[in-house]
Amino acid sequence: MIKITIIGSGNVAQHLIDAFAKSKAVEIIQVFSRSQKQISPFLDSSKITNDWNALAEADLYIIAVSDDAIFNVSSQLPFENRLVVHTSGSAPLSFLNDKNRKGVFYPLQTFTKGKAIDFKTIPFCLETQLESDYTILEKVASSISDNVNAINSHQRKALHVAAVFVNNFTNYLYQLGNDICQENHVSFDILKPLILETAEKLLTLSPKDAQTGPAKRNDISTIEAHESFLSDENQSTIYKILTQSIQNHGKKL
Amino acid sequence: MIKITIIGSGNVAQHLIDAFAKSKAVEIIQVFSRSQKQISPFLDSSKITNDWNALAEADLYIIAVSDDAIFNVSSQLPFENRLVVHTSGSAPLSFLNDKNRKGVFYPLQTFTKGKAIDFKTIPFCLETQLESDYTILEKVASSISDNVNAINSHQRKALHVAAVFVNNFTNYLYQLGNDICQENHVSFDILKPLILETAEKLLTLSPKDAQTGPAKRNDISTIEAHESFLSDENQSTIYKILTQSIQNHGKKL
Repeated sequence: MIKITIIGSGNVAQHLIDAFAKSKAVEIIQVFSRSQKQISPFLDSSKITNDWNALAEADLYIIAVSDDAIFNVSSQLPFENRLVVHTSGSAPLSFLNDKNRKGVFYPLQTFTKGKAIDFKTIPFCLETQLESDYTILEKVASSISDNVNAINSHQRKALHVAAVFVNNFTNYLYQLGNDICQENHVSFDILKPLILETAEKLLTLSPKDAQTGPAKRNDISTIEAHESFLSDENQSTIYKILTQSIQNHGKKL
Repeated sequence: MIKITIIGSGNVAQHLIDAFAKSKAVEIIQVFSRSQKQISPFLDSSKITNDWNALAEADLYIIAVSDDAIFNVSSQLPFENRLVVHTSGSAPLSFLNDKNRKGVFYPLQTFTKGKAIDFKTIPFCLETQLESDYTILEKVASSISDNVNAINSHQRKALHVAAVFVNNFTNYLYQLGNDICQENHVSFDILKPLILETAEKLLTLSPKDAQTGPAKRNDISTIEAHESFLSDENQSTIYKILTQSIQNHGKKL
């Protein structure tokens, strides 16, 4: 069994504890958390500590804290030359203190507190400073997911930016759609099957081939009708910019 | 059995023919199509005509053609005072010629040629000029879908604009995500579980509650890092505008 210690008590830490509990290759020997309360529903309380000096020897330490806190937390560790990784999509390896062997263990998914998630399909993006450490990280990730990828820091940065487009920005478009429905007294629920199908289409078509709508087919009269329908300035600005951008996409200036 | 004639041979017409073939309450007695070829995989060829004067008497005529063609097609019909509907999200009732009883039969979904779709979950948005015609339209829609809604023209317009945001624009964000991945030599497939989960989250959370990311939490250093990562002007413009818009959302000026 590979012995793991998790440091952190947030969303990602909780989901990882949950996932590793079902793994046969990995054992969580300890969790460092300032608040015992947040972790106790997930783990036997004897394994929870808030004392750096009480940390036992593990094969891998996973720091699942906010980007800003990674350096500070990794500097607190009272040992050297062990394998220590963070779980961030945007933080470089250098956010970790040099005294230990460094790596990244980034699950590329959006975690919602309290909502169970199937780890088997979550892409794990792994990176290690030393090639010899990659094997252990790969074993750990493969014990909970079927989707394990070697991703260097530059690629991870690209994925993180792209994830903002397909997750944060997409969800914001859902929000604007919701606003438009509310303002016009029609249920947003009517759009949900469309939203699901739009995402599921990508399993069989590229986004380029899946693109439809008035902007794509340059249907000026529908575009003008939509623009005059939208009285909210923010909605109207975003409509115009994304429409123009779709119309110009792929054209070289 | 309610007798239906479908006029048109495109994507929506083909999917409707397919769906009604399984319905026990509805019978397609005829399809008007200029091209027999496009329809023959879906229907017995004796039921396909391209002669307006050969149209038999039906309880309902569904015009599934592009918005621009609705008026012309509805004017060609060689009869009066029958129930004639179009399937468009954006066309008003007035696009139909006045000589027949008018209505709208709008399936709010994105149809891909050749990709089967579960009609049971597709929202149908119905409207009729005469209240007495609503019953028949409702019976027809309910025979293939569990999601039937009375939607007036104004609400339908709002839904159609909102659908552009949650479908066309969302798919375009997928495309930008794909571009960013390609430019940085990392597989877009890694983002697909995130894309699916982003859509599925809406089944349990409102878009407002589901919103995460650097813009939402006002994480300036991550936003700046992303902006300097993006060298493409179009990607960069859209990143900035959507980020600002998320930051300002809900704030009254």
